[in-house]
Amino acid sequence: MKRLWIENGIFVTMDDNRPVLKGHMVVEGDTILYLSEEAPDPLPEGAERINGQGLVFMPGLVNTHGHAAMSLLRGYSDDQSLQVWLEQKMWPMEAKFTDDDARWGTSLAVAEMLKSGTTSFVDMYDRMHIVAEVVEQSGIRGVLTRGVIGLCPPDVQTSKLNEAKQFVRDWNGQAEGRITAMLSPHAPYTCPPDYIARIVEAAHELDVPLHTHMSESAAEVAQNVKDYGCRPVEHLDKLGFFTRPSLLAHAVHLNDEEIALLAERGAAVSHNPVSNLKLASGIARVPDLLKAGITVSLGTDSAASNNNLDLFDEVRLSALIHKGISGDPTAIPAWEALKMATTYGAKAIWQEKRLGMLKEGMKADFIALNVEQPHFYPQTDMVSHLVYSGSGRDVLHVWIDGKQVVKNGECLLLDEARIRHEAQQCFERLLSS
Amino acid sequence: MKRLWIENGIFVTMDDNRPVLKGHMVVEGDTILYLSEEAPDPLPEGAERINGQGLVFMPGLVNTHGHAAMSLLRGYSDDQSLQVWLEQKMWPMEAKFTDDDARWGTSLAVAEMLKSGTTSFVDMYDRMHIVAEVVEQSGIRGVLTRGVIGLCPPDVQTSKLNEAKQFVRDWNGQAEGRITAMLSPHAPYTCPPDYIARIVEAAHELDVPLHTHMSESAAEVAQNVKDYGCRPVEHLDKLGFFTRPSLLAHAVHLNDEEIALLAERGAAVSHNPVSNLKLASGIARVPDLLKAGITVSLGTDSAASNNNLDLFDEVRLSALIHKGISGDPTAIPAWEALKMATTYGAKAIWQEKRLGMLKEGMKADFIALNVEQPHFYPQTDMVSHLVYSGSGRDVLHVWIDGKQVVKNGECLLLDEARIRHEAQQCFERLLSS
Repeated sequence: MKRLWIENGIFVTMDDNRPVLKGHMVVEGDTILYLSEEAPDPLPEGAERINGQGLVFMPGLVNTHGHAAMSLLRGYSDDQSLQVWLEQKMWPMEAKFTDDDARWGTSLAVAEMLKSGTTSFVDMYDRMHIVAEVVEQSGIRGVLTRGVIGLCPPDVQTSKLNEAKQFVRDWNGQAEGRITAMLSPHAPYTCPPDYIARIVEAAHELDVPLHTHMSESAAEVAQNVKDYGCRPVEHLDKLGFFTRPSLLAHAVHLNDEEIALLAERGAAVSHNPVSNLKLASGIARVPDLLKAGITVSLGTDSAASNNNLDLFDEVRLSALIHKGISGDPTAIPAWEALKMATTYGAKAIWQEKRLGMLKEGMKADFIALNVEQPHFYPQTDMVSHLVYSGSGRDVLHVWIDGKQVVKNGECLLLDEARIRHEAQQCFERLLSS
Repeated sequence: MKRLWIENGIFVTMDDNRPVLKGHMVVEGDTILYLSEEAPDPLPEGAERINGQGLVFMPGLVNTHGHAAMSLLRGYSDDQSLQVWLEQKMWPMEAKFTDDDARWGTSLAVAEMLKSGTTSFVDMYDRMHIVAEVVEQSGIRGVLTRGVIGLCPPDVQTSKLNEAKQFVRDWNGQAEGRITAMLSPHAPYTCPPDYIARIVEAAHELDVPLHTHMSESAAEVAQNVKDYGCRPVEHLDKLGFFTRPSLLAHAVHLNDEEIALLAERGAAVSHNPVSNLKLASGIARVPDLLKAGITVSLGTDSAASNNNLDLFDEVRLSALIHKGISGDPTAIPAWEALKMATTYGAKAIWQEKRLGMLKEGMKADFIALNVEQPHFYPQTDMVSHLVYSGSGRDVLHVWIDGKQVVKNGECLLLDEARIRHEAQQCFERLLSS
């Protein structure tokens, strides 16, 4: 089995027992075999040796909410109200999407994510078999789900749900296990209650988790109360949503009772601070969520509302914004913010036993950042530097399942020049058609 | 005179009359001679030709508040209350600073700023002759001021003020005009009123502007009211502060009357969103300041409270945070955020007639970003991409006064490897001494 021996690196492990260590890591196949300050003894025979000097190694980041193909709409509509953005800009363009657009938009997003250190991503969209193919090709890890909007006749609802279920059957566990699948009602305000109940039932049948947008804006919470007589958390709870492992995107507008109920039900949250600010949705109560014991992970949302997929941006903003809002400079310390993108991210996608930490026995999903740059000096607290000074652009190398997928900042399994070219062509065609 | 001809570039000019153009720019000596969609006719003889393909050119950024030497304390204390951070961490370390520490800390900061596209920076600290020497060497433009704290006996006050005045006499206009100087009482809460009045008088005498920290935290505003019976803006106004051109760092806690008075007096503000969030100081009322007609520029503050000096971070955060706070997704559009780092920045340092815009007759301070990367695709709205996706790490080349100071991401006039090494040595000495 292929072996990799990293010598003399700094390892930010995300393991509370030894957060940072300077030393050696050995990978065998897709697994971390050894991690220690001491050189391995005996030295691993026939291993590819990597000089870790000047590099910081850490677990690959986990992006727990997004819509990759929408990268095609990056910068197409900014600084607009949510309604104009969505109804006048996004939806009409998305309605014109073809398989080609899905392929190149997703490829563009995956290239951006890999190069900036994201090794696992959640994707909710349609044409998911195309997303799965891009995952297969690129070497990234994907938690994929066909998001369904239920504002349509019953037969269309059924056909969408069948498509979502078929995707799970076809792709769950594929790409050497790098693909896992979920089911997703798009949101409580875009799916009638009985449709949500049917999706929950299907998730039981297929034994997969659930993902949805929830309480992103104050307006949708008010609408939920008006339509169903309760707020979204209670509404979803009544529909049995939380009887499945579940991941909630946004969760900006929650009251204390909702937070307590989510904690009790064990639901995880994907905090999307940049998107929530950009669309003026508000700021999630992350310190309260964490205090309640809820798993809070980080997501970029799509490049159409962010407008980038660099998860380091979300980490930094998470560490900064909750201090400023609460008036407490100790809120969300650097270590906690970095956990949201790694160990908590892994937990939010139910893979904390194999992802999110550099530790013997874990999957070899890890990244290396070039810290021989002024913004990482003096080399004092590397965790602080990664959070407050680091960027996806500092990532030089990326390995997933022990296999290198980014080397010196370039994707090894994707043709980046072609992706840029095709994405540009797709956008221009969408614009003019 | 040396000529430079950039062919086929995308130019984000920051000029409202033609925000973005694809074409040609010719520089002669330190000045922009020509900028147009058409190739120059006749072609400039003997010019250095630069292929602009795949690059976006824009004015160099203006960082209007910071303390460069404090880069030595990057990551030394995070996630602490302001008092612990300042009194237990910063001040004891700064008290041990030597000339060497000032030199290498400042060099580290200047290298980071240049590489990330900042071509002009404001610096308030002590040992300013050393900062001036680093400015001279590195090719950057500096607006420098010896910040004075007046909580000391009268003779020490006088000696500090004399030092600050001597610095102005020695260095204002030096380094081929790249250095300008100011006077700076550190803050209303660290300088007795009569001392501030003396500094204002000295600024008149030397004909230089004034810079100070003001209303960074709610506590200092309350203290001002308690000590002097009025809020900081009125207090400074009574002391004649605004009879000089003035630049106020932070200005987080302002009421409507203060905003109106600042607008009337023509004072400029340096908005430091990252530092204000990190120290939990709060969020400045930037949309209100702009609406009142106040010049709002951007500053990083020091790397000890940020912890990086990439002004693109401040641009993006300015475009994002005021949307999220106000609930208005149209607040601080991308173009306005980018102006804060360029044209408004230039105005805040009283150099808008020569800096902050790509236009014939302006100084040739400009930067080139590599946009052949996924996060700049599809290439739709480049202003949006720079603000919401751009980073200082995307900067490839930097010119100041028409002279290239960064090429392919490396400083040409600074020895970066030595600076990193010396900064590390300085920090370790400070820590152990």
